[in-house]
Amino acid sequence: MAKLNIKPKRDCMWDLVSLGEVMLRLDPGDERISTTRHFRAWEGGGEYNVARGLKRCFGMETAIVTALADNPIGRLVEDLMLQGGVSQKYVRWVPYDGVGRTVRNGLNFTERGFGIRPALGCSDRGHTAVSQLRPGVIDWDQIFGKDVVRWFHTGGIFCALSESTPLVALEAMEAAKRAGTIVSYDLNYRASLWKAIGGKAKAQETNRRLAPLVDVMIGNEEDFTAALGFAVSGLDEQHSQLKASSFKQMIERVVKEYPSVGVIATTLRNARTATLNDWERCATTMASSTRRRFGRIWKSMIA
Amino acid sequence: MAKLNIKPKRDCMWDLVSLGEVMLRLDPGDERISTTRHFRAWEGGGEYNVARGLKRCFGMETAIVTALADNPIGRLVEDLMLQGGVSQKYVRWVPYDGVGRTVRNGLNFTERGFGIRPALGCSDRGHTAVSQLRPGVIDWDQIFGKDVVRWFHTGGIFCALSESTPLVALEAMEAAKRAGTIVSYDLNYRASLWKAIGGKAKAQETNRRLAPLVDVMIGNEEDFTAALGFAVSGLDEQHSQLKASSFKQMIERVVKEYPSVGVIATTLRNARTATLNDWERCATTMASSTRRRFGRIWKSMIA
Amino acid sequence: MAKLNIKPKRDCMWDLVSLGEVMLRLDPGDERISTTRHFRAWEGGGEYNVARGLKRCFGMETAIVTALADNPIGRLVEDLMLQGGVSQKYVRWVPYDGVGRTVRNGLNFTERGFGIRPALGCSDRGHTAVSQLRPGVIDWDQIFGKDVVRWFHTGGIFCALSESTPLVALEAMEAAKRAGTIVSYDLNYRASLWKAIGGKAKAQETNRRLAPLVDVMIGNEEDFTAALGFAVSGLDEQHSQLKASSFKQMIERVVKEYPSVGVIATTLRNARTATLNDWERCATTMASSTRRRFGRIWKSMIA
Amino acid sequence: MAKLNIKPKRDCMWDLVSLGEVMLRLDPGDERISTTRHFRAWEGGGEYNVARGLKRCFGMETAIVTALADNPIGRLVEDLMLQGGVSQKYVRWVPYDGVGRTVRNGLNFTERGFGIRPALGCSDRGHTAVSQLRPGVIDWDQIFGKDVVRWFHTGGIFCALSESTPLVALEAMEAAKRAGTIVSYDLNYRASLWKAIGGKAKAQETNRRLAPLVDVMIGNEEDFTAALGFAVSGLDEQHSQLKASSFKQMIERVVKEYPSVGVIATTLRNARTATLNDWERCATTMASSTRRRFGRIWKSMIA
Amino acid sequence: MAKLNIKPKRDCMWDLVSLGEVMLRLDPGDERISTTRHFRAWEGGGEYNVARGLKRCFGMETAIVTALADNPIGRLVEDLMLQGGVSQKYVRWVPYDGVGRTVRNGLNFTERGFGIRPALGCSDRGHTAVSQLRPGVIDWDQIFGKDVVRWFHTGGIFCALSESTPLVALEAMEAAKRAGTIVSYDLNYRASLWKAIGGKAKAQETNRRLAPLVDVMIGNEEDFTAALGFAVSGLDEQHSQLKASSFKQMIERVVKEYPSVGVIATTLRNARTATLNDWERCATTMASSTRRRFGRIWKSMIA
Amino acid sequence: MAKLNIKPKRDCMWDLVSLGEVMLRLDPGDERISTTRHFRAWEGGGEYNVARGLKRCFGMETAIVTALADNPIGRLVEDLMLQGGVSQKYVRWVPYDGVGRTVRNGLNFTERGFGIRPALGCSDRGHTAVSQLRPGVIDWDQIFGKDVVRWFHTGGIFCALSESTPLVALEAMEAAKRAGTIVSYDLNYRASLWKAIGGKAKAQETNRRLAPLVDVMIGNEEDFTAALGFAVSGLDEQHSQLKASSFKQMIERVVKEYPSVGVIATTLRNARTATLNDWERCATTMASSTRRRFGRIWKSMIA
Repeated sequence: MAKLNIKPKRDCMWDLVSLGEVMLRLDPGDERISTTRHFRAWEGGGEYNVARGLKRCFGMETAIVTALADNPIGRLVEDLMLQGGVSQKYVRWVPYDGVGRTVRNGLNFTERGFGIRPALGCSDRGHTAVSQLRPGVIDWDQIFGKDVVRWFHTGGIFCALSESTPLVALEAMEAAKRAGTIVSYDLNYRASLWKAIGGKAKAQETNRRLAPLVDVMIGNEEDFTAALGFAVSGLDEQHSQLKASSFKQMIERVVKEYPSVGVIATTLRNARTATLNDWERCATTMASSTRRRFGRIWKSMIA
Repeated sequence: MAKLNIKPKRDCMWDLVSLGEVMLRLDPGDERISTTRHFRAWEGGGEYNVARGLKRCFGMETAIVTALADNPIGRLVEDLMLQGGVSQKYVRWVPYDGVGRTVRNGLNFTERGFGIRPALGCSDRGHTAVSQLRPGVIDWDQIFGKDVVRWFHTGGIFCALSESTPLVALEAMEAAKRAGTIVSYDLNYRASLWKAIGGKAKAQETNRRLAPLVDVMIGNEEDFTAALGFAVSGLDEQHSQLKASSFKQMIERVVKEYPSVGVIATTLRNARTATLNDWERCATTMASSTRRRFGRIWKSMIA
Repeated sequence: MAKLNIKPKRDCMWDLVSLGEVMLRLDPGDERISTTRHFRAWEGGGEYNVARGLKRCFGMETAIVTALADNPIGRLVEDLMLQGGVSQKYVRWVPYDGVGRTVRNGLNFTERGFGIRPALGCSDRGHTAVSQLRPGVIDWDQIFGKDVVRWFHTGGIFCALSESTPLVALEAMEAAKRAGTIVSYDLNYRASLWKAIGGKAKAQETNRRLAPLVDVMIGNEEDFTAALGFAVSGLDEQHSQLKASSFKQMIERVVKEYPSVGVIATTLRNARTATLNDWERCATTMASSTRRRFGRIWKSMIA
Repeated sequence: MAKLNIKPKRDCMWDLVSLGEVMLRLDPGDERISTTRHFRAWEGGGEYNVARGLKRCFGMETAIVTALADNPIGRLVEDLMLQGGVSQKYVRWVPYDGVGRTVRNGLNFTERGFGIRPALGCSDRGHTAVSQLRPGVIDWDQIFGKDVVRWFHTGGIFCALSESTPLVALEAMEAAKRAGTIVSYDLNYRASLWKAIGGKAKAQETNRRLAPLVDVMIGNEEDFTAALGFAVSGLDEQHSQLKASSFKQMIERVVKEYPSVGVIATTLRNARTATLNDWERCATTMASSTRRRFGRIWKSMIA
Repeated sequence: MAKLNIKPKRDCMWDLVSLGEVMLRLDPGDERISTTRHFRAWEGGGEYNVARGLKRCFGMETAIVTALADNPIGRLVEDLMLQGGVSQKYVRWVPYDGVGRTVRNGLNFTERGFGIRPALGCSDRGHTAVSQLRPGVIDWDQIFGKDVVRWFHTGGIFCALSESTPLVALEAMEAAKRAGTIVSYDLNYRASLWKAIGGKAKAQETNRRLAPLVDVMIGNEEDFTAALGFAVSGLDEQHSQLKASSFKQMIERVVKEYPSVGVIATTLRNARTATLNDWERCATTMASSTRRRFGRIWKSMIA
Repeated sequence: MAKLNIKPKRDCMWDLVSLGEVMLRLDPGDERISTTRHFRAWEGGGEYNVARGLKRCFGMETAIVTALADNPIGRLVEDLMLQGGVSQKYVRWVPYDGVGRTVRNGLNFTERGFGIRPALGCSDRGHTAVSQLRPGVIDWDQIFGKDVVRWFHTGGIFCALSESTPLVALEAMEAAKRAGTIVSYDLNYRASLWKAIGGKAKAQETNRRLAPLVDVMIGNEEDFTAALGFAVSGLDEQHSQLKASSFKQMIERVVKEYPSVGVIATTLRNARTATLNDWERCATTMASSTRRRFGRIWKSMIA
């Protein structure tokens, strides 16, 4: 495995830049989407959340590369991202047609589970501005070459948004590598997103093309199997009883196939009920495999 | 002008059936869309609102013909329509792709004005299930022939949803006429909806094709000019000082051109501020022109 | 035990019709009734809840037979039942006197328990319209003979509302049996309701008179003892440690005494804390006794 | 007219004691009772409000004589009255039957008007504890003789609650007069309350029996006519155009008939819309008739 | 140990009088202080809470001796204390300067923990009216001698507010002893309050000066060590595994040193997570040591 | 009068930098501070609001120079300023003592008026971090010399916070002038703030010392008289009927006395009721006096 050389902070405008969608998240609180009369508004997105967390929990300077339709919904996402502290210097605003036929902003309706009832999400993210991003549009040299970035992050959700988004990720990762920026990639496999644009086969083809450019690969057990095509032996259908040794063997095969990857990180969740989850995490680096088991913790429903 | 012969109630399952979209309406209450953290959920749609109002304010039996994507957002619209008391017997549920690429439910973000700040709406209704309705899909003979309906209502918003929706309206209106059901049509011109599918010219062509099938034509001054192509002389750009006599002349030309229309109805609103509006209404029938001026009334912000 | 012959769906307007009270339920959320400043409004009632659940969870067509005082409180119950999807075709509206001396609508104030503090309810249901229902008022032949119903449900709460309600239940059950509709009855013993109208003795007399007309008898351990007069040996005062074998013996005695009953169903709840309950359920039919033990589940506080 | 001699504060436990009902007021905020899902809880009652206002706006020491059913609803009224600062030393707590057949607490559902839509109230106050108060139950000698009170207030709402409440008011007023406490009485005519217990004739008989014991008589134009039987000439049906001179003539007749009354006070409201009201007030004392016209003011909807 | 002789209720105006600060408590509900947009308002204070609990949970008559700045914040605390039912007869209102430079009211921002995240509080109580109380200001002879009190309570939070508050506590306790009123004192050690006025040494000096006047001494393990200077052997840093026998030995030393103390009471809490706590309590009296172990209970987050 | 030469945008990091306090604003919505149970949280401050408005309404880049105590209240202000989009690059975080004796964050409780009841505010801003700012602490050369700023704004509220804040304003304004940055100053006289530190005389002395450094002087009629010592002839006590000509004469005297001032701007508000205000505004520049009268507009209660 390779060793990570992170640029010194004093030379960089940004600790991290993420590339991905930012959706308006509508949350019915203690109620259910299909019978509520009230929604709470948040913003969120797999790749964006990394930038937001680094800013508000760890005080780092981060920015998001994304696109939004220029209507009040997009401006609400702007307001939420302002509160999130993530720089919008690289956000592209696309004119709205007044209807949502040509371009939209992504929406994500999410409800909490309770006891034996699992959490439920319903994303409404077709035809979004970010899914229409194409190579050649973002000035990556400005970002990585002039502004300078310590770490670039993107992932498998962004790459599943359309035919063109993996190409945007590819040019971003190539530019990052050229500039000496660390690249992390969260496999984050979502079957529904891939279904209409080639399914699991397309997901694996896409991710395998990007993997050689990745310094830090992130994924849970399902991601490595479904999104990257590795098999974990002894894994049952529900992934509920993941055998650590089998998982370790798989990681070793990933390391062997992609020697340029410097760190492989994963979280292992066992959901006892919707409100009580066990979490483990595991990171494999050049030197050794670190693994520690958390005690029984409660998943915060409020984050 | 023609005379309206409405079927007796005892022979009919429905007092009124509407054809149109039902959107989830998200309303930030006293706040603004672009800075709120809370939305109140309602359902609404130009043609649907007629069916809902007749049911809950006047106790009539009404139904809606529409289509919804089968996801929790659609099921919330179902829950809201249940509360609205409008029968969902003719609602078509279309399978959802988990993403919103192929089919969606319409969303309508609306905020109140205040004082000199006007109300603001942002609809997100592209690619909806109802916009994909095509002729031959709805069993109009069941509705008008077997279930039997006293009054059918649709309008210019539904007809602007796509290339196919005016054809659905046409087959519905023809079936209604065959069955002796009264047909009303609200011109309801929305420039943004028509823009991408032919603009004002297409709107006029569409509405002019449907007009001979209409018994009761509804519209404000802008509707008759923009959506049907009649001119009101002496009307300034803002329609703020509508001269009653000029408007009357235009109505007479409409009556002459479409002799089968039995009633022409309009509302004349003068918005002094976002919270203080004057309303007049005017109905022209075969026998006479009735017109009464309301006193100064307050527009309910809650409706 | 008898076998249940349920009418085919195609011949019936309703999958189920319930007879019972529908109350406005006022719920202080996370707070307590006696110190709150806010209530959430719901509708509910033992017999009605069966009709609502079948409609909204299982998609069946259901209706409620009840009576309401015609004031804004009753109209709020109407609005809530519309949302609940239960047909109000058989709801009787009784004129209100402006004060609540002659007729009222039932109110049910309920608060959640927490940890060692149990849930608390306070019903305010005296002098309600439904408690004043008398035999001869409801047109049961229209319901069971013309509209046709697959299953009729009522229970021990409705029969405890007044001297006259058991007589209404009796005429309904007789009409249902004549029409071949299945009859279910939930014993649901509430000491406070019976206290003023004859107590446990009257409850047993009432329920024993109705039992021969019941196809499906529902009750927990307390119901069979208090409301029907059967004894379960080895049952302690709190019913907390119900011995399954003793319960089974009691059911066998019920079966023997009422051979026309086709199914005896019960739920066995053990409340560990206000938020953590164990549930078992048990159904005894002609062929066999089915019993399965649920795993530890969480009782939804939101339902 | 008589002169008022108010006891010095240093000799009295209370500045004012009121006799009347305290209801739980449920208020849907900006929404309507019949479609809301949320209520705000307040306490209120015509006679009680006087005691609460004197305490919280003017810092006087006041107490309420009333009765409540001892259940969580009554305890919520207790909590609200604690916040209101009115002493509950003379509140009688009546055991609850768990159902509300024998005794209840009064509820008052109220909604705001808006523009041309008037405010709407629905009281549910039959069978309340306070309506069952009977003479001989309250220890008036303790209140007026030992604790000592400067001013006693009751009114026509309390006296319309049942056959027995005017008798309670009578014994209270007689005890107050014996002790030298000033007595005020708000006529406050409510047709719905009197309807079932003798109507307007009974109201007038009741009020005329109490009037000789009153030092300060309060009422608007409708109260003096309907509740006390005086006629105001030139008063139209809606009381919207009250002629001051005619009203003055009527007051003079009241003064003549009840010479022991020291002050006659009234408020004259002209509701332009639900949110814009004109108010005048008028007090006639021994010396002169004071009358001042307020400017156009807004009625606070929040109090 | 001494025996407690509590005055009979019939001779006393108050069951209990507390001396301490009452703060406005601002609580973000399910959210966190640093990101919320909404606060719920409550009142609270270590010594006051005893008076409030005795009134609302046990129906006793209680009063608070405190001081508040006379501004709308103080008046909100007044409104909250009215609801709390604690008499404000001895509350001193201090004129406000419009800015908060000379005198303020205490604020306490508190948020709940969740799972492994502990609860968080931020008090803003510098320069408060109550911290400026000085000896000679309160008329203790009126309170203990004329009004007469069964039990007086104060504690280590009040005594840490400033240099002068322990002197006020001292004069109060001396007056109470003279009048035969039982005195209880809750050690309640808060390092942050003592830090600027002498730290732990000053706390111990203060508490040791007051201890001989105390009849009932209350404290957890940390209080007896940090605030009073006793050592518990075998106590680890986190106090998480308190050995009962060691604690008992320490109590015996307290008893020996302060023979006038009649009862020593403590609560032993083991916080498993922020929402799941074990509680024990222990009281040592003249006759014996009573100790009972509670079962596993849930700490109410709402109280 | 002088002419304003504003630096070109391309040379500047900031369009505007403000110097002033940012308080947590707690707002009871439709209720009153002294009886509410809920507060909405906002941030605000006279000088800060200018920076926030320029950013969110006009899209300019702005920053705030201020100081905050580092506790959860301060971090909530940070979160609110992030949403406000104003850069916190120059915010000083001061360690908190856990109590609020040495340093605090400012709080501002504000309630809306209604009809004839005026709005009410209660600020609690003594001992704040920003009031303890002293000369020599802020690196003004970095701000004006290296980062470069087009416009600097501060005002009379900041200068009234303590003895030291006018000195900080002075050094800031001198540095701004040296760097060629435009300086604006809002007189904003608040009697309560000045009362304890020298009153109106001190305010006038302070403002007169700063005036020669000001390019744009802002103030209403009261500000020019009370805070700067100019008299407007014919101005009544309530300033309700400001005569335009008298006001103009005063402005001319200001211009004469401070020739370096380039613009004098004011707003003239006439509050008809708490919800209906007339506004005029007036700006006097070198070339001419511009004045326009607005129509009757509504003051937004939500801002």
